[in-house]
Amino acid sequence: MPSTVVVKNVPRPDLALLNRLGQFGVATVHEAQGRTGLLAPYMRPIYAGAKASGSALTVLAHPGDNTMLHVAAEVCRPGDVIVVALSSENSDGLLGELLATSFRARGAVGLVIDAGCRDVAEMAKMGFPVWSKAISAKGTVKATLGSVNVPVVCAGAVVQPGDAILADDDGIVTVPQSELDAVLQAAQQREEREAKVRARLAAGELGLDIYNMRPKLAQLGLTYIEPPPSGGAQT
Amino acid sequence: MPSTVVVKNVPRPDLALLNRLGQFGVATVHEAQGRTGLLAPYMRPIYAGAKASGSALTVLAHPGDNTMLHVAAEVCRPGDVIVVALSSENSDGLLGELLATSFRARGAVGLVIDAGCRDVAEMAKMGFPVWSKAISAKGTVKATLGSVNVPVVCAGAVVQPGDAILADDDGIVTVPQSELDAVLQAAQQREEREAKVRARLAAGELGLDIYNMRPKLAQLGLTYIEPPPSGGAQT
Amino acid sequence: MPSTVVVKNVPRPDLALLNRLGQFGVATVHEAQGRTGLLAPYMRPIYAGAKASGSALTVLAHPGDNTMLHVAAEVCRPGDVIVVALSSENSDGLLGELLATSFRARGAVGLVIDAGCRDVAEMAKMGFPVWSKAISAKGTVKATLGSVNVPVVCAGAVVQPGDAILADDDGIVTVPQSELDAVLQAAQQREEREAKVRARLAAGELGLDIYNMRPKLAQLGLTYIEPPPSGGAQT
Amino acid sequence: MPSTVVVKNVPRPDLALLNRLGQFGVATVHEAQGRTGLLAPYMRPIYAGAKASGSALTVLAHPGDNTMLHVAAEVCRPGDVIVVALSSENSDGLLGELLATSFRARGAVGLVIDAGCRDVAEMAKMGFPVWSKAISAKGTVKATLGSVNVPVVCAGAVVQPGDAILADDDGIVTVPQSELDAVLQAAQQREEREAKVRARLAAGELGLDIYNMRPKLAQLGLTYIEPPPSGGAQT
Amino acid sequence: MPSTVVVKNVPRPDLALLNRLGQFGVATVHEAQGRTGLLAPYMRPIYAGAKASGSALTVLAHPGDNTMLHVAAEVCRPGDVIVVALSSENSDGLLGELLATSFRARGAVGLVIDAGCRDVAEMAKMGFPVWSKAISAKGTVKATLGSVNVPVVCAGAVVQPGDAILADDDGIVTVPQSELDAVLQAAQQREEREAKVRARLAAGELGLDIYNMRPKLAQLGLTYIEPPPSGGAQT
Amino acid sequence: MPSTVVVKNVPRPDLALLNRLGQFGVATVHEAQGRTGLLAPYMRPIYAGAKASGSALTVLAHPGDNTMLHVAAEVCRPGDVIVVALSSENSDGLLGELLATSFRARGAVGLVIDAGCRDVAEMAKMGFPVWSKAISAKGTVKATLGSVNVPVVCAGAVVQPGDAILADDDGIVTVPQSELDAVLQAAQQREEREAKVRARLAAGELGLDIYNMRPKLAQLGLTYIEPPPSGGAQT
Repeated sequence: MPSTVVVKNVPRPDLALLNRLGQFGVATVHEAQGRTGLLAPYMRPIYAGAKASGSALTVLAHPGDNTMLHVAAEVCRPGDVIVVALSSENSDGLLGELLATSFRARGAVGLVIDAGCRDVAEMAKMGFPVWSKAISAKGTVKATLGSVNVPVVCAGAVVQPGDAILADDDGIVTVPQSELDAVLQAAQQREEREAKVRARLAAGELGLDIYNMRPKLAQLGLTYIEPPPSGGAQT
Repeated sequence: MPSTVVVKNVPRPDLALLNRLGQFGVATVHEAQGRTGLLAPYMRPIYAGAKASGSALTVLAHPGDNTMLHVAAEVCRPGDVIVVALSSENSDGLLGELLATSFRARGAVGLVIDAGCRDVAEMAKMGFPVWSKAISAKGTVKATLGSVNVPVVCAGAVVQPGDAILADDDGIVTVPQSELDAVLQAAQQREEREAKVRARLAAGELGLDIYNMRPKLAQLGLTYIEPPPSGGAQT
Repeated sequence: MPSTVVVKNVPRPDLALLNRLGQFGVATVHEAQGRTGLLAPYMRPIYAGAKASGSALTVLAHPGDNTMLHVAAEVCRPGDVIVVALSSENSDGLLGELLATSFRARGAVGLVIDAGCRDVAEMAKMGFPVWSKAISAKGTVKATLGSVNVPVVCAGAVVQPGDAILADDDGIVTVPQSELDAVLQAAQQREEREAKVRARLAAGELGLDIYNMRPKLAQLGLTYIEPPPSGGAQT
Repeated sequence: MPSTVVVKNVPRPDLALLNRLGQFGVATVHEAQGRTGLLAPYMRPIYAGAKASGSALTVLAHPGDNTMLHVAAEVCRPGDVIVVALSSENSDGLLGELLATSFRARGAVGLVIDAGCRDVAEMAKMGFPVWSKAISAKGTVKATLGSVNVPVVCAGAVVQPGDAILADDDGIVTVPQSELDAVLQAAQQREEREAKVRARLAAGELGLDIYNMRPKLAQLGLTYIEPPPSGGAQT
Repeated sequence: MPSTVVVKNVPRPDLALLNRLGQFGVATVHEAQGRTGLLAPYMRPIYAGAKASGSALTVLAHPGDNTMLHVAAEVCRPGDVIVVALSSENSDGLLGELLATSFRARGAVGLVIDAGCRDVAEMAKMGFPVWSKAISAKGTVKATLGSVNVPVVCAGAVVQPGDAILADDDGIVTVPQSELDAVLQAAQQREEREAKVRARLAAGELGLDIYNMRPKLAQLGLTYIEPPPSGGAQT
Repeated sequence: MPSTVVVKNVPRPDLALLNRLGQFGVATVHEAQGRTGLLAPYMRPIYAGAKASGSALTVLAHPGDNTMLHVAAEVCRPGDVIVVALSSENSDGLLGELLATSFRARGAVGLVIDAGCRDVAEMAKMGFPVWSKAISAKGTVKATLGSVNVPVVCAGAVVQPGDAILADDDGIVTVPQSELDAVLQAAQQREEREAKVRARLAAGELGLDIYNMRPKLAQLGLTYIEPPPSGGAQT
């Protein structure tokens, strides 16, 4: 049970694939892989329009302690998205603009943290996208070791080192490296289907017809009625 | 106990009245009808400056299931605000930009949902205003029926089909159809009174004097003192 | 046990010191005074880029009752930041743009409230910065007395009347009047140190080296390993 | 818009029907009326084994103010369950053992409050069952009027005066007076069906067979597989 | 700014006074001192019937670190109630039965912690009363210093070392040492008054009459009406 | 991406090992495996003194849908603890006493569900231990497939099918099958060490000495002072 390890040289997905991933939205990719891989919705971007697509460099840290983020910076490579999980619930500001500067200098394209971050105005100005569960100026210590590049549970989802990570205004989704190709294809097909559906909906057609929902609704017993004559609504 | 009905042809307020309603703010209208009708403050707009005023088309849906939103689109009319209540607490993204496109094509002017929504960047670009309790990319199924245009409890408030709905940066308020005229008059008077008060406050006059609060404060025993000499603050 | 008092003529910090304080960020000042004085992170500004630095005019109010905010306006002086604590948890909109207009007319430079506020669009347009735990149009009564300029617990932190208050996108920090000078010096030194560290980090140097963390990490037993050969990640 | 009324002489269900209702559990009755009428699960009894069945005497109160509970006591009749809704979120202890003594003396058989209560040890000793969202010793004022026996939204459910209320360890359900007879019959049938199912389940039969679920599961594509040979768990 | 101190030999209230305090309930004492001093209601006892009355030995600890509880044990004296505040929100189990054994051996009569505790079954068996915001088996480290016997904010209330602390099923209240005598007298008087009121309420008299509320209710405009004839409930 | 599978014949730990596990407490086992494997503390037992130790039969279910619990019953074996994870946050009552009867008949020794349960009085009477995040009578549908015996994230922790599960009043911990032997040994040693420590603490010895904490505290700069002479507490 070695509880504090740093795994080096984790295999990453091809950067070209990560770039293609970044052309989709989180909702599309989540659907394309069978509605899996989504982090919990309490994770929010620090500015509207934030977007990142990269390879997960995972960090397991402890409440109020940012030691392992510094350790992670050393093994960070271009195209990485840092994914920070905590050993227990905490909202302290483990990430600030100094660390963000360091991660950016090492090639990181974004950061996801199931805790707090601070210096959000500076990080927004830098254009360094961060998703967190809180914004907090609470400072941290450097006292306790965690791990880097081990599987973690971040905001309710398992993230493996080297997973593809996609994050935007809708949230964050993780895609296993082995499934990235298939998911990209499925996402592409989904987008094409949706473009056609969008045009029909915009023209006034109904999802009831486009998705052929009427037979099932009838079978389930959906009933259409008129409002009661005197308008006396009852609850 | 017919548990899954769609009520068609619900009487709506006059569009001219709904437009007038849209010229006020939510706080003003809430006050004008005796501090009632407000939805809970956890409901937030997906972009700053969102505003909608329309007739409530109510939807009762189930966690993780957006069937009834498609059903609602068919009975939607120009000027409607879709109001989605859930049968139990849930934050899944029942609404995305495809459904928003459909609602807009049918004339809806906004949507209020006591659950999650996704594709928020796209909906903001469309200028389709949405108020929700969460932003979540979590996809949904189409398996279980609810109802359309029945009275619902949405974010702690009863909304009747055909109620006037007003929503802005401050939240959401519902006005019974039968009281809309009276509420509009009261709101108008309130705005005029407030304009005068605002000018006096801006000039440095005090609410204590404008609202004649001093006698009551004195009667309740308010005491003015100087700080203790040595500055020894006590808690 | 006089439970409803208004303390007049509370000594304030020098305006020049408060202006200097406003040139730092909340995170810096929080660190500079030994990681103390921070309000809880659920307090959020009503618009991005909000910033205020002033002397605390404290208010103890009751749920759903804004009487004491009107009382506070009378004893407000230029440079004050109004700090409103509640006697129990509440999110009603105790502050709206009329009261904000009054506070601004009396010289207040911002407001912090451990409850709700409304008219956020108008207050943003005015450029009156507010930090609150909720946005709520819920109106209030004027029925029960609290106090003004007594020590309060606001969002988990003790605020004394006349404390220096600094608030920005990262949150809110309070600095005891007697420590303001020392904290300003420490903040200045911290900023200078951080500028140097930032430049080194931006150039690719690691925090591990800059902060000399490697010996401690080694002592604590940090181990670097390669990933398992077959890529079989285990949780 | 009369905002503060007390409705007297509200018609109640027959006491015999309320007694019969009390012989069922909340879950059974909730199912028997088509999965409706349930209050939110954050409402908890103050002691294990609490149970009440009666006619709803509704109260709309304000945060931190218990005036209307005293008003309600006067119109309380034997067999009533007091149902207290708040005009906004609040956890103050609006109910204590003195008020409980008063309600019991007037014939009330229990109380449901979407706020806090105190003196829980005393009320448990009295055997007066209370369901609340918090236990809080926070005292209240008597300053602002609400209403008695108007429809309210309590813990997310509409409660009409004179509704039948059933509460136990599982929560609280409300049954419209006009549907009480039908719901009691449905509950009785449900209990009889469940007794048979229980016996079969206890004997080792499966719900899959008793409820004939296998054809639908097969149609939906459920697949049975063996674990991977090497035990390499994948997430 | 010495951030890590242990204050020794803090003056405590007389044990006889603390014993008298323990004969009252938390709600009574909170009222008797003007509705102040209450900790937030999310603090709950680990077993029903828990009660403690003692002198506050305050501890400021950090998330996930129980170092300072061990430090506190050394300066603990008979009659102390340990009051543990955290520097930021945390639910880890900082207290377990070993530490409880130590505190008890040093004379402590209870413990209040704004974080988690574990071994609750063992502590209940010992009869060592604990109030916490969570029950969590999450273990802790011993890495970072805090303070002992400095003023702290615990669950939203300021607690000074040597304050009298009273805790029971209703929550926790703190009484400044200098006010303990007066509060005990006021509590005694309150209990006597309440005994009389209780007897009258139990006999069916109404609070409306006992507290002479009717004139104020009439003045505020309370109106009594009969229900609408057709029973058509309106929301 | 087969999204709905049932894995049969998952290898389980030896029953004798599971029995040995049940002789320890959750906190001990969590510590013994390096402070890992703990589920989040919002999971609570439905009655005090609940305890279970068994092999994880995992279930991935959807909000408001208990289909997969019935599917799980068929592959349940004596000694299993059912561990139910949800695809998104939900508190509906997916488990009731009928299903509990079925699980018990198939040999299950307990159930852990990251959602709600109902019929808690009946399940307590049966002595069937359940840990859940809510108690809710909200009924469910049988419409959507999930999976059985796949790895799940339950209350923030990864649980693999066949993991050893231990649950008691302090919470729930999961132990990988491959580590069970080692963890049992470590737990045994820990208990023996703790018994000695407990005796010393009960005799008044301090953790400071037993754990040899004084040198580190001194090195970190812990300072002991006397209280200020005039007792003027400062915050």
